[in-house]
Order: sequence, then C-alpha cells, then structure tokens
Amino acid sequence: MLELLTSETPNGWKVSILLEELGVPYKVTPISLTDRVQKQDWYVALNPNGRIPTLVDHDAGDFAIFESGAILLYLAEKFGRFLSVDPQDRSRVIQWVMWQMSGLGPMMGQATVFNRYFEEKLPSVIDRYVRESQRLFGVMDAQLATRDYLVGDYSIADIACFPWVRGHDWAGVDMSGFPHLQRWFERISARPAVQRGLLVPTPPSDEEMAEKTTKQGKTILA
Amino acid sequence: MLELLTSETPNGWKVSILLEELGVPYKVTPISLTDRVQKQDWYVALNPNGRIPTLVDHDAGDFAIFESGAILLYLAEKFGRFLSVDPQDRSRVIQWVMWQMSGLGPMMGQATVFNRYFEEKLPSVIDRYVRESQRLFGVMDAQLATRDYLVGDYSIADIACFPWVRGHDWAGVDMSGFPHLQRWFERISARPAVQRGLLVPTPPSDEEMAEKTTKQGKTILA
Repeated sequence: MLELLTSETPNGWKVSILLEELGVPYKVTPISLTDRVQKQDWYVALNPNGRIPTLVDHDAGDFAIFESGAILLYLAEKFGRFLSVDPQDRSRVIQWVMWQMSGLGPMMGQATVFNRYFEEKLPSVIDRYVRESQRLFGVMDAQLATRDYLVGDYSIADIACFPWVRGHDWAGVDMSGFPHLQRWFERISARPAVQRGLLVPTPPSDEEMAEKTTKQGKTILA
Repeated sequence: MLELLTSETPNGWKVSILLEELGVPYKVTPISLTDRVQKQDWYVALNPNGRIPTLVDHDAGDFAIFESGAILLYLAEKFGRFLSVDPQDRSRVIQWVMWQMSGLGPMMGQATVFNRYFEEKLPSVIDRYVRESQRLFGVMDAQLATRDYLVGDYSIADIACFPWVRGHDWAGVDMSGFPHLQRWFERISARPAVQRGLLVPTPPSDEEMAEKTTKQGKTILA
C-alpha cells in the first residue's frame, strides 16, 4: 500500500492528482501545517526537510520519499505511466518537472507570501514576484501554442504545473494574457481524476479554505 | 560531442563540474548574461526558459536540454555514473537534487538578490531569505552528520548543492554553525574536477567576478 502524508497545498495536490490518475489504492494521512506536525520528529524522520508531501511505499520496505517532484518521478516509473518511454521525450518531461520545481513553484510561492501573508506591504517585492510568475506563464504559453500538453501526451510535467497555475488568483498573478495556457488549464481541470485529487486530504468549503490557508501562511512565516 | 552553453553562475557550475568529473570531451559556449544573450531567439529555441545552462548533445540529434537538474540526470544516466543503480538510492539522489532545485537554489538566489542587487534595502525581506537559507543548511547539516555525502557515494546530489553552498558569503548567509556541512564542503572543494569545473566558462579574477556578477544582477532585475 502507498501512503500519502499531505495537506491542502499545490505540492500536495500534485501527488494526489497523480495517484488518482493512476487509479491505485492509497492511504491518506492528513498533516496539519497549522499544528506544525511536519516539524515533529516522527515526520522529519520520513522527510528531512520538514515539508509536505511525503510518500511512503509500504510495499517497498516502507520506503519514504520527499520532494513532490521526486515522488512524481518515482510513481511514474513504478507504474510505467505519464512519463514517455522514449529517452528524449522522457528527458523533456523531466526538464519541465524541474522547471516547475525550480521556477514556477518557488516564484508563485513568493508572490503568494508577499501578496497574502507578509506583515509589511512591499509593492516593489510583490511586483518582482508577480512579474517573474507572469514571465513563467509566458514560457508555458509559448510551449503550449503548438501543443495540447507540455510534452507529447499528458504527463507528470502537466501534473506538476497544474496546481500552481490553478493558484494564480490566490497568488495575485493575472492569467488573462495567456490564451494557450488557459486552454491547457481548462483541459486539465476537466479531468475527473484531477477533480478527485484536489479533494485530498479533505474537501474544504471555500470559507474554510481561505481561513485555513491564511493561518498556515502565518504559521509558516512564524 | 557535448556542448555546454553556460555562464559563471552556480547553476552553470553544477554542469561543468559534472562534465569534469565524467572526464568526457565537451565544448563550452560562453553566454553573456550582461548582453542578455540568453534571451535571443536562437538561444530560446534551445532553452524555452531563457536561462543558463543548456546542454546540447550533438551525438543524439542535437538534443537540447534545459534546467540544470535535468541536465545532471541526463548525463548521469548517459554515462552511468554519480547516480546509484540501486532503485531506492537512485530515488534518494533524485530527492536531494529536487530539494536543491526547489529549495536551496531559489532561496539562496533570493537572499543574494535582496542582499546584493535590489535597489531598496529591505531588512525584513533579507531576514526572511537568510533564515530560510540557514534552515536549509541545517537540513543538509543533519543529513551529513552521519554521512560523508548526501546519499551513499559522491553523486549528482552533492554536485547540485555544492556551488550554491559555495556562494554563501556572496548571498550573505553564515555557514559557521554547520560543522558537518563545512566538512562536506571542504571534502568536495578538494576534488580536482570540481576545481576545474569552477573555471568554466572562463577563469575570472576576483575583481572581475565581483564586477561581472553585480552587472549581471542589475541586468536580471532590469
């Protein structure tokens, strides 16, 4: 059995979406970021970075995996899906996963922090991260101008990017100037497995979500 | 023949260090960030993100690879070195490469920007990124308390992290409280291939380096 230790964040949803797409059984263990469970000793023993998500493969000697990008790659290889077997297309998928991990995620994360959680309102810093996030949206938009998905068929590259693009309103990043990105976003949003993945670990109401996320942001900054 | 398009940055040095460790022939094409060559059409056709480094494998149909983490994985797999063949250790190496790509690199990058290049001096923002970088140093330090390298033998995980740790002074991040990290840093610094890799694309003087990097930072922010 696979066990996903996770919370309601883009990095967590990447993995729950892939697990739903794979259609394999898995157990969900919700991790309360508000209560800082991800910093408790038992959790850090699984995930030395003290962040969510973590995947534990109980069928492989309780092997624990941290970093969402590494979890996506592990699952795609374990089940032989959502990652091309062609060596060059496989590398291309990994390139876009790395791009999400190093660029889209961190920069939209910073935009969210300075738009939503940081005590001071710092327009020049917000502007820096909003502009960089929009530059990254432009990179995706150009890639998607001639393709339905980032690389060939729907893959872990799309799954990695989707929850971050989905958070554009919350991060304060306008997506209206990127028509190819928008069509890609609608195409992926329509997938039933994606919709199920976004309900993991718990399906919150809109109000609960806003409240919870605000609290988590404050906790993270504390 | 392999061709590395690069500049004097931590992400560029990751790849030149690995190529030197592999001992394979490669051509270096310096990319001037000051002149924004990485934004020119011919370069963006190779690297849709418009950043360095890019690797082109001319022995594989001129296959172009962007994102330094993806390049490390491509080369490690192509030559079968610096990446364990044991499936779980292989995943562990990839986990730490992902951790560097999503955490250590972006956060030390932001510390550098706000300590060095940003027009305004914003102590609360500098403090945010210095503290997060030190948290990440602590994660490495704990991992290295019982190991010479991040995962088993010296691997692309160490190579990915090394140039960023090396930039701690420039980023304004104190490393003195992390003895295991320091020993790891000295161990890797002593490797001849690492020393050669750090001279790519050009061996600058200290003065040239400081001047060049300042200019590049201003260009990047422009």
